[in-house]
Amino acid sequence: MAIKLYGSPLSPPVRRVRLCLEEKGLDYEDITIDFSTGQNKKDPLISINPFGQVPGFEDGDLQLFESRAITRYIAHAYADKGTPLISDDPKKMAIIGLWLEIESLKFDIIARKLSYEILVNPLIGKAVDDALVEKGQAELAVVLDVYETRLANSKYLGGEDFSLADLHHIPIISNLMKTKVKALFEARPCVAAWAAMLLARPSWQKIIAA
Amino acid sequence: MAIKLYGSPLSPPVRRVRLCLEEKGLDYEDITIDFSTGQNKKDPLISINPFGQVPGFEDGDLQLFESRAITRYIAHAYADKGTPLISDDPKKMAIIGLWLEIESLKFDIIARKLSYEILVNPLIGKAVDDALVEKGQAELAVVLDVYETRLANSKYLGGEDFSLADLHHIPIISNLMKTKVKALFEARPCVAAWAAMLLARPSWQKIIAA
Repeated sequence: MAIKLYGSPLSPPVRRVRLCLEEKGLDYEDITIDFSTGQNKKDPLISINPFGQVPGFEDGDLQLFESRAITRYIAHAYADKGTPLISDDPKKMAIIGLWLEIESLKFDIIARKLSYEILVNPLIGKAVDDALVEKGQAELAVVLDVYETRLANSKYLGGEDFSLADLHHIPIISNLMKTKVKALFEARPCVAAWAAMLLARPSWQKIIAA
Repeated sequence: MAIKLYGSPLSPPVRRVRLCLEEKGLDYEDITIDFSTGQNKKDPLISINPFGQVPGFEDGDLQLFESRAITRYIAHAYADKGTPLISDDPKKMAIIGLWLEIESLKFDIIARKLSYEILVNPLIGKAVDDALVEKGQAELAVVLDVYETRLANSKYLGGEDFSLADLHHIPIISNLMKTKVKALFEARPCVAAWAAMLLARPSWQKIIAA
């Protein structure tokens, strides 16, 4: 099998890549990296990703890491398979590209911290920092207001069709919906409807059922 | 004139876009946004970027923000002009795309904080937080070690040719070279030679001479 995905089942960046592979209907080999035994700092992963993080990815002789670089590659290299996630038109792709940047630099930076603080800290015996959660929620509200305005005028972030820009949000939105941060989404009707559409996709349902 | 760039002369993200326009040899209209009078929260910028940040960008009827979304658009839409900054080959583009992500999520997040702390704080009457600078330098050293390994085997980050992945680093590297963080670059011969090549580009020389 040509495509290999090195990861951890619950890692949001790994799930982002898995979602992309599922939307494209591609076969791939799943290789679990056990961080507890330091597999992330050993071969084969460390030769793929010198930072020792997941996901790692191989497609034949191509080795990649960084989830968003991997999904962009898949979307371009397998443009003719499964769900179209990008556009050939430079202006349409520019708008998808804008929302890809907003996801990474405005949404995820805050959302990931909230998800980690509220969901992971209790699992590893650390107290939740309520002040940090409050600050994160206030910052996320500003971002979601911009999303609400966008989604009032556009079915998806990148335009009328589902794209990579929407897909990148799914794993973290799924996490946040298990927390009180859900209220920030529910308070914004267009954001709430968009999040519900994303979470209902068969690709995501398959991943969480696995 | 079709292309308009809304920005501030010294902003690294604005300079990133300007560099891309210069490498492509494109004409553009420069519109300075005065933050001191709140122009960033007023039209025309606020209609382009609801976050009220620079750069803002227009090309005919296309409105964009986020510097890296703008440069990707320019590189694709004007692929046949000036310096080629991307590749048509999906595997070559995947490697450029990987380093675009590393710049944004590993390098810039640390480098920008260091640049702000050391160069901007004294200008606005704030003390430099030495502990934060030390921590930032230690984090940047880890990233630059990965760069050193890459650049020992490849002339540029994305391959043998200069690409968008290199270009995105230039404004912040130029800032850091005015600080003690320069030593982290000088201690790594391949990184030092690469940084010198980037800063010597006529596009950058033109921008800093303006």
